[in-house]
Amino acid sequence: MNGYEHDHTTAEQLQAEVELYTPFTAAVRDLVDATIRTLAGPDEIRAAQAEIEAVTARLRAEQLPGSYGVRLRDDGTARSWGNAVVGLRNPVAPPLRIESDSERVWADFHLGAAYEGPPTFVHGGVTSLLLDQLLGHAASAAGRPGMTASLTLSYRRPTPLGDLRAEAWVDRSEGYKTWAKGVLIGPDGVTVEAEGLFILPRWAREQVAPEDIPASFE
Amino acid sequence: MNGYEHDHTTAEQLQAEVELYTPFTAAVRDLVDATIRTLAGPDEIRAAQAEIEAVTARLRAEQLPGSYGVRLRDDGTARSWGNAVVGLRNPVAPPLRIESDSERVWADFHLGAAYEGPPTFVHGGVTSLLLDQLLGHAASAAGRPGMTASLTLSYRRPTPLGDLRAEAWVDRSEGYKTWAKGVLIGPDGVTVEAEGLFILPRWAREQVAPEDIPASFE
Repeated sequence: MNGYEHDHTTAEQLQAEVELYTPFTAAVRDLVDATIRTLAGPDEIRAAQAEIEAVTARLRAEQLPGSYGVRLRDDGTARSWGNAVVGLRNPVAPPLRIESDSERVWADFHLGAAYEGPPTFVHGGVTSLLLDQLLGHAASAAGRPGMTASLTLSYRRPTPLGDLRAEAWVDRSEGYKTWAKGVLIGPDGVTVEAEGLFILPRWAREQVAPEDIPASFE
Repeated sequence: MNGYEHDHTTAEQLQAEVELYTPFTAAVRDLVDATIRTLAGPDEIRAAQAEIEAVTARLRAEQLPGSYGVRLRDDGTARSWGNAVVGLRNPVAPPLRIESDSERVWADFHLGAAYEGPPTFVHGGVTSLLLDQLLGHAASAAGRPGMTASLTLSYRRPTPLGDLRAEAWVDRSEGYKTWAKGVLIGPDGVTVEAEGLFILPRWAREQVAPEDIPASFE
């Protein structure tokens, strides 16, 4: 397993792509929300379906053969635009924009109808999806990238849909292993606690040049 | 917390809705995949964005004020069409169609580009999202519905994007608590193991009539 591609776009090309794909993907996210919530009648639904299928066919006229992957940039950063949590081009991703300082990483974000489990609450599995990404990011930010080996979630109370915050930090490390912890925070405080073990994969230790080890695995 | 609504649609109305919304939501899922993978040029992307925004505006002319929720049907089943894992009307959901016998529950499904973490592999958090739903379903199917109290994932190997299977079963139970286990299975065998504790919420024990306790919480 490797599959990380090199990406030689200039900073200007990258910026142009950000400006093109950010509002485009946001429009598809908005359509996802409307798809769940619409009360339009059957004729309107069928007309919308036909238009969406036509747009999709045009977009697919030229496309990647598979998934987006992760592209390693010359400046050492990675472009995970297809990622299910942070992907700028992935409408399934909220997307989280993860910030960091020397001690922890965090993200403030909004979850709407597309992330529902129990009525008006975030799906418990969505909270684990987001915390997995955030804990992995905390390990990477501390210079200890790894893939998730184990993850434990403790649910303290239901997480309401709406504005939320997640935080994560490295708890301890040992050799190729790093333990990270994190929390999801709603308007009434912590809703979910997470602890994860992240391990630098064998292929990254033995088979890949140091400069090809991505700063993050997701 | 409750929020479960009663749903008095007839079987015929329900079937008509299934036939309307299944292909419509599938079209939006297909657009999500094309959004990630398209290599169309900037003009085409901008044109697609404008068309998508117009469709969304028409769909939103009449819509639910919030999320879809969960609707309890007169026959005792629940309609979780907004659910992030199984929701028939949620383009974020793959969606999983969970089958069951007296011993376990399972789902066969396909995950494409929208669920990526490391290049060509399923996001580790997506596997936890799906297993949370499946373990909760196993508890419900055994007549022991509950909300997730804790969930532990052990990652055995990376899960490739593509055709996958998940299985779950009840391990043991005690009072309002039920422990369920499950696995995610790829072409080379088990990739992720999960164990979860599900607890019947207090409001369901004390405040709600027995017929209002949903068969599942998500």
